[in-house]
Amino acid sequence: MVDWKNPPRLFIPGPVLVKDDVLQQLARPTLGHRGKEYAQIHGETVDMLKKLLFTEQNVFISTSSASGIWEAAIRNCVAPDETVLCTMCGAFSDKWSSVAKSCGREVEELKVEWGTATTPELIDEKLASGNYAAITLVYNETSTGLTNPVCDISKMMKEKYPDVLVFVDAVSAMIGLPMHFDELGWDVAFASVQKAFAIPPGLTVAAVSNRALEKAKTVPDRGYYFDFLAWAKSAEKNQTLVTPNIPHIMALNYQCHKLVKEGMENVWKRHKEMADFVRAWAKEKFDLFCEEKYASNTLTAVKNTKGINVAKTIKAVQEKHNTVFGNGYGKLKEQTFRIAHMGDINLDDLAELLAWIDEETG
Amino acid sequence: MVDWKNPPRLFIPGPVLVKDDVLQQLARPTLGHRGKEYAQIHGETVDMLKKLLFTEQNVFISTSSASGIWEAAIRNCVAPDETVLCTMCGAFSDKWSSVAKSCGREVEELKVEWGTATTPELIDEKLASGNYAAITLVYNETSTGLTNPVCDISKMMKEKYPDVLVFVDAVSAMIGLPMHFDELGWDVAFASVQKAFAIPPGLTVAAVSNRALEKAKTVPDRGYYFDFLAWAKSAEKNQTLVTPNIPHIMALNYQCHKLVKEGMENVWKRHKEMADFVRAWAKEKFDLFCEEKYASNTLTAVKNTKGINVAKTIKAVQEKHNTVFGNGYGKLKEQTFRIAHMGDINLDDLAELLAWIDEETG
Repeated sequence: MVDWKNPPRLFIPGPVLVKDDVLQQLARPTLGHRGKEYAQIHGETVDMLKKLLFTEQNVFISTSSASGIWEAAIRNCVAPDETVLCTMCGAFSDKWSSVAKSCGREVEELKVEWGTATTPELIDEKLASGNYAAITLVYNETSTGLTNPVCDISKMMKEKYPDVLVFVDAVSAMIGLPMHFDELGWDVAFASVQKAFAIPPGLTVAAVSNRALEKAKTVPDRGYYFDFLAWAKSAEKNQTLVTPNIPHIMALNYQCHKLVKEGMENVWKRHKEMADFVRAWAKEKFDLFCEEKYASNTLTAVKNTKGINVAKTIKAVQEKHNTVFGNGYGKLKEQTFRIAHMGDINLDDLAELLAWIDEETG
Repeated sequence: MVDWKNPPRLFIPGPVLVKDDVLQQLARPTLGHRGKEYAQIHGETVDMLKKLLFTEQNVFISTSSASGIWEAAIRNCVAPDETVLCTMCGAFSDKWSSVAKSCGREVEELKVEWGTATTPELIDEKLASGNYAAITLVYNETSTGLTNPVCDISKMMKEKYPDVLVFVDAVSAMIGLPMHFDELGWDVAFASVQKAFAIPPGLTVAAVSNRALEKAKTVPDRGYYFDFLAWAKSAEKNQTLVTPNIPHIMALNYQCHKLVKEGMENVWKRHKEMADFVRAWAKEKFDLFCEEKYASNTLTAVKNTKGINVAKTIKAVQEKHNTVFGNGYGKLKEQTFRIAHMGDINLDDLAELLAWIDEETG
């Protein structure tokens, strides 16, 4: 029986499992968003986020899903007569391209087959052939479990195309994978909190470079809700432009405290250990969908080499254990399945889940 | 000492006081937003909202503050070469005009002095003089505590300007004041949940007419995040276009159940009783800022006829009772102060607050 008040434990690649102590943060008494209490939690949270993302530039908290920042990056930092290069390697990077078009911008597309990486060489070749204001990258494609070589790409960009802005969808990467925002020379990078921050959905964190703000000053009709310049002005007062999602910011504050204490090297190591564990299992029982060197440390897309009925297996695990993992995304349904290993999920949780899948698939 | 973990009880006109049982709804285990559990709560919630707003058309749930819908109404339903008439009678209606401009639309402004109403006659005069695609109205100006005569305006619009779309900011009105969306002939009306729904901020409810959706089909570059047509397509599956703010939807579901059970006539009556109580006190001790026939049933703006130091009074009440009410907004600071009486605030809460203000002001 479907009962939203008793939902399954989540191992889908987002929203991911949220622990009870984190959920309880959402239930704190609320604040006036123009009062001192709000400025206090806002400032405290942004300071921690800057440490976690290795930036001294701007970190904004957006009351939206991450897809709002797909649009924000384009509307703020690409003028109507400029062209953006959208790299496409899966459902979410593909979607960003259509969002850019819906904002009336010229889009050039660089497509690779789902499950393969977007390399610096491919981007270089494309950028050399035209005049681009910006590129869009997806750090970790949630639909295919693939991590793009963003460090190599960023190095190439800094060397050869220093004037092209770099926008990075870090939705299933941020916190789980290294992200030295300033050093990478990125301009916009963002993630919603229902991935490796391990908070229910409803809020997004965005790092924005100073030069992105400078660029925005030259772009007309940026709109209101996602206007980076208005955001920056409010941020000076430790406020947000619009009334913010305060319960989620309370949960974000709580999670940031834990992450700062743990230290990002340890956080990334913890994610790698979970990924190694799931990948070892996947290789033994099935196979990885991506080439191993690009396989993500936050989720694994397993290639269904045994031809199991994925939907039926998920249903069986749900019925017996009130727990779900993810089928393949879109056209990869049944050909793959996906297991999240990020945020507050741990090795014990994963061992339990994998044993249950084994039970169903022999 | 500022401590966001022990914030004051809120009688500011939003976010308003949220009761513990409502806060606890935010802490429920989260859901997969493409799963059956989410579709269940979404469908159930939207069905109830349609009853509360007296509409058989579209009700959308937006993971944004209400100001997102200021922008959405414009971007979706006003073409770039069309003109919108923005009525302006306070800080929030004024802001909507600047939002419309930031979207690159032609705006004509109809201003009245803060604290006075926008009448059907004024609108009629303006509309007769030009070619307008839409008008923006604020049902209840939170900055001045004024309720515009929206029923009379709507009647006039239906009779004389049936082709002009009607967009209504119902932020501090929805639930607290009557809103028969279909009968009024409105096209977009919206409110965030931190007002009379009595939920912390982070979510917005928007009613959208079928003809607004038809109009959107003719408007280019609507963008992605606030695209009504994409919203409508997702709504058919009881889903949202983007990953939604699930904890707030759980709280909204809980509040809707209570409101449906109470019945909207009773809900409005309860708000009127609270307003009568606060207004009687205000008239005895100070005065009302607005003409009484336009004074809001969800908040009262009190005219500071005694010349008390408002900021100091608020501070004293906060220090003694960990409770705050609102100073005047913007240019009305110190000239007025504001007390919210909506949502789950009750007469006992208000009696306590007013006695504390009396203690400070003699």
